[in-house]
Amino acid sequence: MRKLFYVALLSIFASCGEGDSNAKDYKDTSLSIDERVEALLPKLSLEEKVAQMRIFHANIGAKHDKNGNLKLSDKVIEKLKLGIAGIKNPGEHIDAVSAAEFNNKLQKYIIENNRWGIPALFVTESYNGVDAEGCTKFGRPIASAASFNPELVQRQWDVVGREARLRGMHMCHSPEADLVRDPRFGRMSEAFGEDTYLTTQMVTSAIKGVQGDYEGLGNGTHIGAVAKHFAAYGQVLGGSNFAAIEISPRTLIDEIYPPFEAAVKEAKTLGIMASHGDINGVASHGNPELLTGVLRDQWGFEGYVVSDSNDIARLHYFMNVAETPEDAARMGLEAGIDIDLYAEDSYAYLPEMVKKNPELEKLIDRSVRRVLRTKFILGLFDNPYIDIESVKVGNRAEASLELAKESDLESIILLKNENNTLPVDAKKPAKIALLGPLLKENTKAMFESVVADNIKFVAEKGFHLTDETGGAPKLLERDGKALDNLVNIAKSSDVIVLFLGGDEFTSKEAFFNNALGDRATIDPVGPQDELVERVKALGKPLIVVLKHRRTLSINTIADQADAILDTWDLSEFGDESTARIIFGEVSPSGKLPVTVPRSIGQIPFHYSMKEINYKKGYLFLKDGPLFPFGHGLSYANFEYSDIKISNPEMTADTELEVSVTVTNKSNVKAKEVVQMYIKDEIGSVTRPDKELKGFEKIELNRGESKTVSFKITSKMLEFTGVTMEKVLEAGDYTVMLGTSSNDYLKTTFKLKK
Amino acid sequence: MRKLFYVALLSIFASCGEGDSNAKDYKDTSLSIDERVEALLPKLSLEEKVAQMRIFHANIGAKHDKNGNLKLSDKVIEKLKLGIAGIKNPGEHIDAVSAAEFNNKLQKYIIENNRWGIPALFVTESYNGVDAEGCTKFGRPIASAASFNPELVQRQWDVVGREARLRGMHMCHSPEADLVRDPRFGRMSEAFGEDTYLTTQMVTSAIKGVQGDYEGLGNGTHIGAVAKHFAAYGQVLGGSNFAAIEISPRTLIDEIYPPFEAAVKEAKTLGIMASHGDINGVASHGNPELLTGVLRDQWGFEGYVVSDSNDIARLHYFMNVAETPEDAARMGLEAGIDIDLYAEDSYAYLPEMVKKNPELEKLIDRSVRRVLRTKFILGLFDNPYIDIESVKVGNRAEASLELAKESDLESIILLKNENNTLPVDAKKPAKIALLGPLLKENTKAMFESVVADNIKFVAEKGFHLTDETGGAPKLLERDGKALDNLVNIAKSSDVIVLFLGGDEFTSKEAFFNNALGDRATIDPVGPQDELVERVKALGKPLIVVLKHRRTLSINTIADQADAILDTWDLSEFGDESTARIIFGEVSPSGKLPVTVPRSIGQIPFHYSMKEINYKKGYLFLKDGPLFPFGHGLSYANFEYSDIKISNPEMTADTELEVSVTVTNKSNVKAKEVVQMYIKDEIGSVTRPDKELKGFEKIELNRGESKTVSFKITSKMLEFTGVTMEKVLEAGDYTVMLGTSSNDYLKTTFKLKK
Repeated sequence: MRKLFYVALLSIFASCGEGDSNAKDYKDTSLSIDERVEALLPKLSLEEKVAQMRIFHANIGAKHDKNGNLKLSDKVIEKLKLGIAGIKNPGEHIDAVSAAEFNNKLQKYIIENNRWGIPALFVTESYNGVDAEGCTKFGRPIASAASFNPELVQRQWDVVGREARLRGMHMCHSPEADLVRDPRFGRMSEAFGEDTYLTTQMVTSAIKGVQGDYEGLGNGTHIGAVAKHFAAYGQVLGGSNFAAIEISPRTLIDEIYPPFEAAVKEAKTLGIMASHGDINGVASHGNPELLTGVLRDQWGFEGYVVSDSNDIARLHYFMNVAETPEDAARMGLEAGIDIDLYAEDSYAYLPEMVKKNPELEKLIDRSVRRVLRTKFILGLFDNPYIDIESVKVGNRAEASLELAKESDLESIILLKNENNTLPVDAKKPAKIALLGPLLKENTKAMFESVVADNIKFVAEKGFHLTDETGGAPKLLERDGKALDNLVNIAKSSDVIVLFLGGDEFTSKEAFFNNALGDRATIDPVGPQDELVERVKALGKPLIVVLKHRRTLSINTIADQADAILDTWDLSEFGDESTARIIFGEVSPSGKLPVTVPRSIGQIPFHYSMKEINYKKGYLFLKDGPLFPFGHGLSYANFEYSDIKISNPEMTADTELEVSVTVTNKSNVKAKEVVQMYIKDEIGSVTRPDKELKGFEKIELNRGESKTVSFKITSKMLEFTGVTMEKVLEAGDYTVMLGTSSNDYLKTTFKLKK
Repeated sequence: MRKLFYVALLSIFASCGEGDSNAKDYKDTSLSIDERVEALLPKLSLEEKVAQMRIFHANIGAKHDKNGNLKLSDKVIEKLKLGIAGIKNPGEHIDAVSAAEFNNKLQKYIIENNRWGIPALFVTESYNGVDAEGCTKFGRPIASAASFNPELVQRQWDVVGREARLRGMHMCHSPEADLVRDPRFGRMSEAFGEDTYLTTQMVTSAIKGVQGDYEGLGNGTHIGAVAKHFAAYGQVLGGSNFAAIEISPRTLIDEIYPPFEAAVKEAKTLGIMASHGDINGVASHGNPELLTGVLRDQWGFEGYVVSDSNDIARLHYFMNVAETPEDAARMGLEAGIDIDLYAEDSYAYLPEMVKKNPELEKLIDRSVRRVLRTKFILGLFDNPYIDIESVKVGNRAEASLELAKESDLESIILLKNENNTLPVDAKKPAKIALLGPLLKENTKAMFESVVADNIKFVAEKGFHLTDETGGAPKLLERDGKALDNLVNIAKSSDVIVLFLGGDEFTSKEAFFNNALGDRATIDPVGPQDELVERVKALGKPLIVVLKHRRTLSINTIADQADAILDTWDLSEFGDESTARIIFGEVSPSGKLPVTVPRSIGQIPFHYSMKEINYKKGYLFLKDGPLFPFGHGLSYANFEYSDIKISNPEMTADTELEVSVTVTNKSNVKAKEVVQMYIKDEIGSVTRPDKELKGFEKIELNRGESKTVSFKITSKMLEFTGVTMEKVLEAGDYTVMLGTSSNDYLKTTFKLKK
């Protein structure tokens, strides 16, 4: 009793303090961010605090009328009286200038209509540029990963950050730090591929790009990142969105966590989004060990954790791990979810819940501090509005569009090139047929823009793969006449370029029951293989341009095409970039960020798996992948030689340097990605067959040689041992330097105790 | 120092004791088994002890000449001087009487040629009867599982135990307690299906059968079981033999362990075999937490643990978790592997290793005790030989052969029966074509044996699926003429029975690199679908008899056949049993022990998965399985009604009874498997969609009704909670009683704290 009374007294003193002359003013910019947060927090009512823990989507009623004036629904007006953590996608369907104007008005309304003038976070997403009207569209993350060029990725995301801030955004629910190893998963293209190291490089580059200079975030040029989905979202069983995750705790730590850990520690991401589903039975949105233990206690994360859409409420109604919506809210809060995305029936209950359980308010304060802190970091209290003139100059700047093209050129992967079918001689007169379901309306024009008129193009899509209606798309019936027509066009052409793969409906996020996007097969759908076979029979040079958002088992294409350019999903200038590669203006230099299996039945199948997983092979199927991770040909001919290691032995305290000489033995200037893989020959636990531990993209003129070196540090050799502690084990290691995960020179070293 | 000295003194006293008049004689049958073990163990030299930890295969030189006399290789003679734990498969290729005679001689030689007269364990395997010449051949375990009749399985394995002991065997490396949930896995048919509860029932029945009365094991009528492969062998990634295992620790405990735990605690298995590969990185053969912590400390297992073939040595040369073969031996010993199966380069090193590390001898003693104890339990010291006359009477007894037929009849699953195509009227004259690659030479004769000659059969295999050469089998080219011939035969018949599925080469253990047996696809191989379609086009009744050893995605067959009998892999009388079912002598009563997916891309897919795993479905694929777990039709028409529960509430200390009335609304006497599934509506961790928790096979005469009841105990509702402790959680549960995992009546109850 006495103790309780004492606490109550203290609390009275604390609230008396508010009126003191010593009280600090949260609007005082000379204070530190933490001081400002602490000055503001006690002023908020419980309801105002909880409002700082919720984000709603603009489509519930934060819109504009024809004249660009605010048009707020009653519901939104009511909400904004308490303030709000943030709003998702305000002004997403209008151009950047209009969006900036609209968002200025919306922000002003919010600031002026809550007691403490707390601004809101405006939140977007950005898989391939800001997910809003009128922004520069880059290739998707899986395509940028193929560039194996983190510096380029950082520049792309720098544009994303700038364009987002220009239109009034402050945070984006991107990038994805998930590993995508199951091509059935419809969201493959939103992430950076199957590999831990590659994804880590790309995710940290993306965050550094989008956030710009971390210390300068308050200057209002960039936005905060939200790395997602923590954790193991890409590991859903069966590649099925929302499915459960069954994973070895060791794999989770050694392979899935590192991109997130680097996002926090190295790239200083402002936000983390939790993952749908569970990990080994424990729902991620209700997992304090994950969201607080690992993320904050181990890694020191200080930003906020946001739920995925409605996922706190889903602890009750979807995951069935919370008996009531209130239980779900309590679980999310205790686990460490600071912001509830969208749900109307979850954190909304917190004020009532605090009446019954006052202890909860401490957890609410913990979360609100993190949200307010983020708003101060982003300068929103001091500088909440956009300068409209700067939008006109900054959005879709010429340099940004050029960067999109540059990125494409580095992302296109030459999978196959029999008899030097590519590049096509741009000087020789020829009739080229551009055919197939992945052709776009402007493909022909884009091809024409890169060559002179000695080359004539004929273009015909021929057939669609799906009815393209969204929802659960239907495959279309085979259209024999359309096929005949395509073959006839091919017949009268000198070179045939088939545009094949998958459209946006054959691979997409499966977020609602009727919006299926995951697939059980990864064969090309429709009569694409038939088209390839019929065109191949004509005996003319056959080039396939692949466009797709998931890995496809392109057995027929791989067998029949003379050349294959794998472009995944490029920028808005994708077909122009493809044309420039086809005509040899630039040599392709992309590398596969995933393993391409021969069939869905081969999965799980990524290059870094333990050797025992693919040592045996399957009956009636050729061994190995169709194309290995890291594979990508060039128009140049790179010779690897002279692998050298600085010392055949290292210790925990020393480093090694390993180098290889790469010589361009051709007449073509080209880029090449030199890759370093390391294999731990014997471990106390079963170890990966090999792991990417370094890569460098170099450019070599014709005949030029370069020696590329990599450091080997003991940190690279650590893993989670039998007792679940990080260990560094003495013994033999092999280093591989080469052009793909299965084409390399190798040497060995010994780690001594 | 003083303490050490004291221990040393004690040890001197102990060894002095050997010569005492008080010394006990291990041959004294009045002593307890433990006393006899302790009397014998100290007499053994280190080398003799280690010999009791090794099993070699008879094919290295424990054979017989033409006259049945022992023909031992020098290597074997040398080994036997020290004694031996056991010999695998002695006399496997000769008939039971010859084997018994040979094994008597071999045992006599062994006893007389080691210093202490220690007999050897003769070890066999038994998937479908003793794996040796001249024994009764039952259906494979997956087929017996389909019977859903544990009592029948126990009777089968009683025959196995008796026939094995009659030919001189003492142990069998069976049954498999693994769950098989990945149909790519070549060994699917060796286990009892995908479900924990069903497998637990079948495995305990098998062990009780093969071991007979545990207390009477010394009487020499039965043999000891070795449940395998501990643990999670069926969960190898990609269904690939020897692959790594990635599994949630919770799933491991709640779903994978129970059949093993029951094998130990309830069925008192004498042996356990460890699993190839790892679990979450830790190699099972070097895993003390698994083999000692779980198996012995938690479950109280007192028998011996045997390695899988060469698997201790493989810790070094295959798993790469041991730096040297000696390290591998130490790891296996420390983990708790008592017997090294086959390896010449593993436990063989133990005597040398003890010189450097005398502490190891304690672990050796620990293992040798377990082996000797097993030999005493089996009565081998007192009664090592077989009475040859009993072999003549007991092997392949008429009752055993009848039991094989009875088992078949209960194992055949009627998957589909459009328009009552089955049964075929045996009284009506008809010409029936028996066609297809799974036809056997005696199929026609077996069919003829069950009907009068009003029914004429024509039989034609038509084509083979593989070249049937073993090793890595090849698929054969489509033989158009053979297909035409089959269709022509069908054309001139009244009813067509196609024998389809997979031969023994399309699904088998993949134990060597060149003996592939795992597959990446589960579609029927060869032109089987084409045959179905062409025959279907004839418009005649089309019955498909499936024979196979892995789950197959029989989409075309399921669509086109009028009736499908799924027979998996039945006894030596399988086609006779199938004929008896086809002609309605008996109604089918088998149920699917697995979920049949529509394609390999749907896996993982078992009925008890969390709902979130299959809630969404895939693009371009019908939802749900092709056939659900527990499915199986009948010639009768069973109506389920009146589901009742004894109380809508229970507590940890009370039980419920739930019942349903099943009425045979047909004119056909038939058996039916009434299945009980329970779903925990909300759990602290994500919970299975439903779990089989009881089943009962009943027989109903025409028009008869029976009320079937099941107990619901709180034990059934336990699972591993967030903190990895077993929990029983208050809340709502649903009970489903029905004819399959997706056809049932349901009711609910509440568990109160």
